[in-house]
Amino acid sequence: MSLLLVSKKRDFTSLKNALLEKDPNLDVEIWPRVENKERVNFAVCWNHPENVLGNYPNLRAVSSLGAGVNHLLNDESLNKDVSICRLITDSLKDQMADYVLNAVTSYRLNIPTYVDRKRVGKWEQLRSIPKKKVTVGIMGLGEMGIPTAQTLVKNGYQVTGWSRSKKEIEGVTTYAGEDGLSDFLSATNALVCLLPLTTETEEILDLELFKQLKKPAYLINVGRGQQLVEEDVIYALETEDLSGAWLDVFQDEPLPNNHIFWNRSKIMITPHIAAVTPASQAADILVENYKRALSGMELIYEVDREKGY
Amino acid sequence: MSLLLVSKKRDFTSLKNALLEKDPNLDVEIWPRVENKERVNFAVCWNHPENVLGNYPNLRAVSSLGAGVNHLLNDESLNKDVSICRLITDSLKDQMADYVLNAVTSYRLNIPTYVDRKRVGKWEQLRSIPKKKVTVGIMGLGEMGIPTAQTLVKNGYQVTGWSRSKKEIEGVTTYAGEDGLSDFLSATNALVCLLPLTTETEEILDLELFKQLKKPAYLINVGRGQQLVEEDVIYALETEDLSGAWLDVFQDEPLPNNHIFWNRSKIMITPHIAAVTPASQAADILVENYKRALSGMELIYEVDREKGY
Ligand SMILES: NC(=O)c1ccc[n+]([C@@H]2O[C@H](COP(=O)([O-])OP(=O)(O)OC[C@H]3O[C@@H](n4cnc5c(N)ncnc54)[C@H](OP(=O)(O)O)[C@@H]3O)[C@@H](O)[C@H]2O)c1
Ligand SMILES: NC(=O)c1ccc[n+]([C@@H]2O[C@H](COP(=O)([O-])OP(=O)(O)OC[C@H]3O[C@@H](n4cnc5c(N)ncnc54)[C@H](OP(=O)(O)O)[C@@H]3O)[C@@H](O)[C@H]2O)c1
Repeated sequence: MSLLLVSKKRDFTSLKNALLEKDPNLDVEIWPRVENKERVNFAVCWNHPENVLGNYPNLRAVSSLGAGVNHLLNDESLNKDVSICRLITDSLKDQMADYVLNAVTSYRLNIPTYVDRKRVGKWEQLRSIPKKKVTVGIMGLGEMGIPTAQTLVKNGYQVTGWSRSKKEIEGVTTYAGEDGLSDFLSATNALVCLLPLTTETEEILDLELFKQLKKPAYLINVGRGQQLVEEDVIYALETEDLSGAWLDVFQDEPLPNNHIFWNRSKIMITPHIAAVTPASQAADILVENYKRALSGMELIYEVDREKGY
Repeated sequence: MSLLLVSKKRDFTSLKNALLEKDPNLDVEIWPRVENKERVNFAVCWNHPENVLGNYPNLRAVSSLGAGVNHLLNDESLNKDVSICRLITDSLKDQMADYVLNAVTSYRLNIPTYVDRKRVGKWEQLRSIPKKKVTVGIMGLGEMGIPTAQTLVKNGYQVTGWSRSKKEIEGVTTYAGEDGLSDFLSATNALVCLLPLTTETEEILDLELFKQLKKPAYLINVGRGQQLVEEDVIYALETEDLSGAWLDVFQDEPLPNNHIFWNRSKIMITPHIAAVTPASQAADILVENYKRALSGMELIYEVDREKGY
């Protein structure tokens, strides 16, 4: 029985230590140096290489090290009877809610512009956008979307939300399904994407969608880069279908140094840091799911392969 | 009976319109073109010129257009029996609370650094400071300080506060007076100055004070520029008594283009925009105080000349 950590480049030292702190008897291996392939029952993946997961005949379950699992669902080498789960912690929800609140307020207060003006020593009072004039719309009311919506409500924002099945969240005007999308968009200024990446949500953030937003419109993408049509952002900034964008995720990560997004003053960029799973909280859940996988129980945050998220 | 608006450079068009909307019969004059000096009973000042307020023999009261009144208390030309008041609105408190929360979170998430790195197209994930590791300390628990402290508590921060007289605020560890200062500082990482400018608070933010803060220490100044010893900030950044600073107010405003603060990556600068009184809410209170001044009643937010704030 062993638990395998797999990533193309992540340093797993602190996670391994945290796992052993929870249970000193755990047998933790780090890919690619695996002593005995037959013994691997559980794998933990982040940015994992292709065609690797098929090498472990006794693999029962695989956990993503984050909230997203599209990289696991798309892995052809992974046997269909291996369970897939993801890793959600209270800290992850909290971080996401704080990040989004901060992006919305920073946008209202022109913070990125003020940072930029420091370079040239330019003192100019810009007009802040009053809180009352912004309706924040959350696409995706799941583990990340709900606490984010609640935090925005608590801080006095008008909030709308959109999901596949209709939700009830205090203080949030909710919409659901394809039929509800255009009403949701036309009630929303600041659009926050917290959808999982699926065939339905790929490239969902495009010009046609931006055009339906209430103006001035602003985009915050913290879902996945593949949900955004990047050239449409540039185009929408020109046509003023968007007044700006705050992006944490990209088609290609790391975002290439020569990417057109970098030197656009209206585009804010952070390097996929909105919410990061802390090792010690991760270890708690991973050890629990490892035990569940060995006993054949349902996993915490097990993914529904049919739904695709 | 007339109400006079006085400023060296502010455009009063929208405020005058808002005042006339509240009461079309008001006689509103804008300095320096005053038809009849004898008729002026009430003045509203922002960044007003010296030796002007003594010219109105029937002046009963003067209102600041903001929360600060040090410019009025220090005006030698102003007769001692003229009442002084300031202008606080719900929006002002809300803006200040949002601004400070945003500064604290942006600091934790390294937002100014990420904006700066856009210029060179540099993708690098920096370590965010977990919320739990930050205790925010508010100096000055008045009209601005209390709602700011409450907003930080509501968003999960540990909060301390310091004022002249001891306060009780739910979720906030409070300290008072000179005796309480060092305990307050040694319990605080992120120091927020929301003190009024008085002889006691002038230059209070100096190296000796920074040294007493819990490390890593961060400074947010939204009070008044004269409270900060500017060269001590630069020095404290070198000695790491401060890890950074977020400043909205300065000794000299506008901050001169050649000021040493501009090109420091660890100093964030906004041009005195933390909280701005909206004209229509201002008009409500100004008209009310004008009526009170004419009837000899106590003013809303009247200033205590003895205390000096
Ligand atoms: N940038 C970062 O640092 C970071 C960190 C964490 C997570 N994320 C990303 O955040 C996203 C959300 O994660 P999560 O854990 O909150 O996901 P989740 O719990 O699975 O929630 C997904 C939400 O999206 C809705 N949804 C899915 N497909 C939809 C469709 N076709 N139309 C309408 N709504 C649809 C779901 O609706 P139902 O409720 O009806 O099922 C659900 O409300 C993921 O893309 C994840 O990768 C990013
Ligand atoms: N940057 C901006 O855009 C902006 C906007 C609005 C206001 N401001 C500034 O914010 C500051 C606070 O305004 P406010 O309306 O909240 O003031 P306030 O209502 O008068 O409150 C002042 C607070 O400071 C405390 N204090 C005064 N002197 C002190 C001393 N020597 N030692 C310890 N505590 C002392 C007072 O203690 P007690 O409660 O015991 O009296 C009170 O709690 C002012 O400097 C104002 O100019 C800036």
